[in-house]
Amino acid sequence: MHTYLFYNDYSEGAHPDVLKALITYNDGQENGYGEDMVTRKAVALLRERIGINEAKIAFVSGGTQANLVVLASLLQPYESVIAPVSGHIHVHEAGAIEATGHKIETVPSTDGKLTPTLIEKVVSDAMPIHTTKPRAVFISHATEVGTIYTKRELTALSDTCRKLGLYLYLDGARLGTALVASETDMTLQDIARLVDVFYIGGTKNGAALGEAIIICNPKLQENFDYHLKQRGALLAKGRIIAAQFLAMFNGTLYMDMARHANAMAQKLSTGISAMGYMFLTDSPTNQIFPILPNTLIDKIKDKYGFYVWCPVNGDTSCIRLVTSWATKEEAVDEFLATLKNL
Amino acid sequence: MHTYLFYNDYSEGAHPDVLKALITYNDGQENGYGEDMVTRKAVALLRERIGINEAKIAFVSGGTQANLVVLASLLQPYESVIAPVSGHIHVHEAGAIEATGHKIETVPSTDGKLTPTLIEKVVSDAMPIHTTKPRAVFISHATEVGTIYTKRELTALSDTCRKLGLYLYLDGARLGTALVASETDMTLQDIARLVDVFYIGGTKNGAALGEAIIICNPKLQENFDYHLKQRGALLAKGRIIAAQFLAMFNGTLYMDMARHANAMAQKLSTGISAMGYMFLTDSPTNQIFPILPNTLIDKIKDKYGFYVWCPVNGDTSCIRLVTSWATKEEAVDEFLATLKNL
Amino acid sequence: MHTYLFYNDYSEGAHPDVLKALITYNDGQENGYGEDMVTRKAVALLRERIGINEAKIAFVSGGTQANLVVLASLLQPYESVIAPVSGHIHVHEAGAIEATGHKIETVPSTDGKLTPTLIEKVVSDAMPIHTTKPRAVFISHATEVGTIYTKRELTALSDTCRKLGLYLYLDGARLGTALVASETDMTLQDIARLVDVFYIGGTKNGAALGEAIIICNPKLQENFDYHLKQRGALLAKGRIIAAQFLAMFNGTLYMDMARHANAMAQKLSTGISAMGYMFLTDSPTNQIFPILPNTLIDKIKDKYGFYVWCPVNGDTSCIRLVTSWATKEEAVDEFLATLKNL
Amino acid sequence: MHTYLFYNDYSEGAHPDVLKALITYNDGQENGYGEDMVTRKAVALLRERIGINEAKIAFVSGGTQANLVVLASLLQPYESVIAPVSGHIHVHEAGAIEATGHKIETVPSTDGKLTPTLIEKVVSDAMPIHTTKPRAVFISHATEVGTIYTKRELTALSDTCRKLGLYLYLDGARLGTALVASETDMTLQDIARLVDVFYIGGTKNGAALGEAIIICNPKLQENFDYHLKQRGALLAKGRIIAAQFLAMFNGTLYMDMARHANAMAQKLSTGISAMGYMFLTDSPTNQIFPILPNTLIDKIKDKYGFYVWCPVNGDTSCIRLVTSWATKEEAVDEFLATLKNL
Repeated sequence: MHTYLFYNDYSEGAHPDVLKALITYNDGQENGYGEDMVTRKAVALLRERIGINEAKIAFVSGGTQANLVVLASLLQPYESVIAPVSGHIHVHEAGAIEATGHKIETVPSTDGKLTPTLIEKVVSDAMPIHTTKPRAVFISHATEVGTIYTKRELTALSDTCRKLGLYLYLDGARLGTALVASETDMTLQDIARLVDVFYIGGTKNGAALGEAIIICNPKLQENFDYHLKQRGALLAKGRIIAAQFLAMFNGTLYMDMARHANAMAQKLSTGISAMGYMFLTDSPTNQIFPILPNTLIDKIKDKYGFYVWCPVNGDTSCIRLVTSWATKEEAVDEFLATLKNL
Repeated sequence: MHTYLFYNDYSEGAHPDVLKALITYNDGQENGYGEDMVTRKAVALLRERIGINEAKIAFVSGGTQANLVVLASLLQPYESVIAPVSGHIHVHEAGAIEATGHKIETVPSTDGKLTPTLIEKVVSDAMPIHTTKPRAVFISHATEVGTIYTKRELTALSDTCRKLGLYLYLDGARLGTALVASETDMTLQDIARLVDVFYIGGTKNGAALGEAIIICNPKLQENFDYHLKQRGALLAKGRIIAAQFLAMFNGTLYMDMARHANAMAQKLSTGISAMGYMFLTDSPTNQIFPILPNTLIDKIKDKYGFYVWCPVNGDTSCIRLVTSWATKEEAVDEFLATLKNL
Repeated sequence: MHTYLFYNDYSEGAHPDVLKALITYNDGQENGYGEDMVTRKAVALLRERIGINEAKIAFVSGGTQANLVVLASLLQPYESVIAPVSGHIHVHEAGAIEATGHKIETVPSTDGKLTPTLIEKVVSDAMPIHTTKPRAVFISHATEVGTIYTKRELTALSDTCRKLGLYLYLDGARLGTALVASETDMTLQDIARLVDVFYIGGTKNGAALGEAIIICNPKLQENFDYHLKQRGALLAKGRIIAAQFLAMFNGTLYMDMARHANAMAQKLSTGISAMGYMFLTDSPTNQIFPILPNTLIDKIKDKYGFYVWCPVNGDTSCIRLVTSWATKEEAVDEFLATLKNL
Repeated sequence: MHTYLFYNDYSEGAHPDVLKALITYNDGQENGYGEDMVTRKAVALLRERIGINEAKIAFVSGGTQANLVVLASLLQPYESVIAPVSGHIHVHEAGAIEATGHKIETVPSTDGKLTPTLIEKVVSDAMPIHTTKPRAVFISHATEVGTIYTKRELTALSDTCRKLGLYLYLDGARLGTALVASETDMTLQDIARLVDVFYIGGTKNGAALGEAIIICNPKLQENFDYHLKQRGALLAKGRIIAAQFLAMFNGTLYMDMARHANAMAQKLSTGISAMGYMFLTDSPTNQIFPILPNTLIDKIKDKYGFYVWCPVNGDTSCIRLVTSWATKEEAVDEFLATLKNL
């Protein structure tokens, strides 16, 4: 029986203030399917936060759903999306993108990030008619291995995409932790300006459920609601997710929750590093990937819940520790103490 | 500006007891993707209520999602689903079923219901290889026009489906109102016994969001979670919907809410009928379809929100009035008084 | 054992001149995938025949393939195609269109034809987001019940489609018989001018196999080859089908074959009519639909191969007789004599 | 202007004896859609050749079509096919497999072949619900880089697949050249016994068009014709492709044509090797991959048509030379002479 779980950032429920918003906005009659006043209010608030008044914003229930609806809306049948091999759409969505008919063209990447060079190679390797036609680029920020893009890097990707006629789509399941990472130089408004579409993740940062899809590029907005409806992503009671985003973005709650998650992960990281262990990636966010001796892993795995990410060599493996808005500092301290005393 | 909306049964938020359950079950760490204790508890409760211990139960966020995931799981690529022309999957889901690759073979029906004869005809008209192969039957209970099946009728459909090798799927978006309709002779357990798959609708009966998919037929259960994940229907925090179903089914809340909705609709129905108007269908549930003079409709349409369902002749049209768990009796009284005084 | 088959117009092989062309164009090295000189020559010839120099022309192996590739290229995921209930794509293609993700919105039609009114109703009944968005119109010429459009009728459909932003697609599986029907007033060039896409059927008019897809609307041409490749419709040796179209359109062979098919069907029609029988539709082409007593049908069905199309009343049924470029006049005479003598 | 093309093995038309068969079997009335006597005869002949009397055999027009119909018939929506990164379905079919909704799980392979170890790793790495469920294995024989499997290797793959519950599918676009390669120890009957499904390629070995899909595993046969029809792969006049396979397999024509192709490629290979050049792969079939200095490639590329396969280092590249049943020995001699004299 585990005393604490570092499996992921959706182990806990919702932040109390988020639940409170559900109650606040529960009364009264509203139109269905996103035409309600709570949704309109949340849309207005997010438009202000991202700095684009004409952005199309839709609230959906989860990340895989956001990814599949967005990509299905961006691509013609013969068009594909470029993603790093570690991309969530490639390895953790049970073929959701392919189920909408589209191929993911993958590129190797050790830090979970794409570069202009990697993208350009896929495009130049494409053979008209015989291969798919790359048309979108999928990145995540923070990535699946905790890393983040700098403003310079994202600008370079954005420039490359615009030059090559590719849509840039950013999966922001863990956008909060990227935005408040100590080493970041990018704001939410920078991101909105540089990509065509992105989503702000709620589920992994304190919401009960829900993600906000933001379509910045006006050419991609028109029929998006049809895609939502067709994929079963349009909720009858729009207020349910909109209310949560109001709670998270009216003040600083969204950033505060992410900041706490990062702080807990970095405390773990600093402590583990001080014991002399290495890490698979250099993560400033809420997922860290220490490399530990297998014998040590065996000793802690009954007490703490976490995933073994991959073997590193015969004797050591990389594990993944994930923290959240709700991670207790005592649990972190205890984990470090346990590790130290073994 | 409307004084009251009779547009649909998702105009209001969630019942307070449902929201309370979200708070009750919010604390603590849980496994993700439906492996949490709240989900297990809700599954156990619903299994008891439907009387099938081995039922596979999954909670999803909406009805179109439930329909598309279930049907995609039942059908091979060349197989189709039989549905009445009024079926929700045929007219109100933006081609969601077809987007999973499957044809809906429709049959005419004036009361929204299917019969063995209608089903047998589709099967006998099918020409191997040239048409699709019918493999599932879609019914809704209550139907899209408010009617319900009797136990005898559903038994006959069930027998026909089993004889012909068809899976019987019941869309229970408004199952509550059917189960408590004054003239019904069917229990939840009867339904579970007679169909292969059905869903218990939460969204249209007092939940914030959510439907419970029940796979009664053990042969159809094994890989269902893959389908959920692939269509973006598997929520990371399973407790969100499970908690609501616990609230609705622990006691009598689910049935109580439906009973109120029906009572309000029937009060409207009785009142309108007393004024001498006819109805499109004989509905004992929370959707009624009175036929009114167009001149009258014009006079009330600014005060009340409702849909004009269809023209009946040059001078009259059928309108749809929908009530819910939250419909206020004063609004009903006022509507009737308004109508009477015109 | 049947002495003659009137089942369909692909009971026989290819016209000898068509086979000869396969030999004529067999020698020499060519580029693959439609980039060969034979294909270029056939494309140039057809462009001249249809009167559009910039038409995109592609040769594919069959009619269902043509329909599914064309419609998949015209429609966004949430968009649908309007078709008559008798449309080949709706009843005879095993869900091929739905397998590409698209819904067919059907309209009733007793003569197999669409009208502006029928199309306008589908468009005006569509409810944004909840239903699909109609975007293409499917017609066949000749239709599945042998009827044909007049120039006035096709012009009206074309005008309606352009006004409503719909693509007009004409399935020309039996285009030859429509073009040479005694009562027609439309040329191949008229058709090319009035539709966005159509195909000229080879399989049902004397080719070994093959149809020529003609994309008249320049906006729809650009990436069509990707669609062909993706659906397995792009032949490695383009010359195989192109050679046949050269044989059929270099001179008058295509029209001559269709003229013979029509003459044989009309001879059957005149003879049967003279015996006092009625017909389901008024067909001037190579498919006729006489209504005969069931007792009579029973007596001839062992000698001749044909399909019973539908029951008409308890005592009579409609049968379908189909002729082709290869139908022998003696067989027609013998059929009529047999019928007369019963 | 090229004097000779070594681009591919479909640069030429059909073998004269194959065309002759089209004429031989052209006369007479037949049933449509593969129910004709020519198809029955060809099916019986191939069943005898492969040694499985109950095999389901279907003739389709091309390789991409064969691959997409077969894989769509083998897989449930959440299931995937394992293929080497060089697999035709992964790099040369414009996303045809994904367009049927399925993911290809790729594994690295330098010689174009899969091994039990590579397959086992994909299966053991799969995470239920989050990744796809591997269910089929795609191999080609000869592979896309000219290599072939030994009987021992294919037996090992077959055993692994049966152990892991995977269907083994062999793409035989160039099966002929593999079967007559000087170093092979496998017969057509061995292959039929070891795989679940394969196809015998006609297009790349002397047919005008056409491939014969062979479903050896009886469990996979039942509804295959629906899949064919739905994907537009069922030809109305079945005799067209069946006749060609009769011509190729009645005597030794199929093997003779492949033997010639191999002989020409091996003559090229021996000659180039004698000049001191290396090869990317060790190919005993009709595709060879010599590595030449870029300066040399530049000098011959205007005279001969061939593809530059990939850069090897800054100064050299790998080219692909493909021969066929129709390759002229003088052209081979001339190519070698040209190369030698540069």
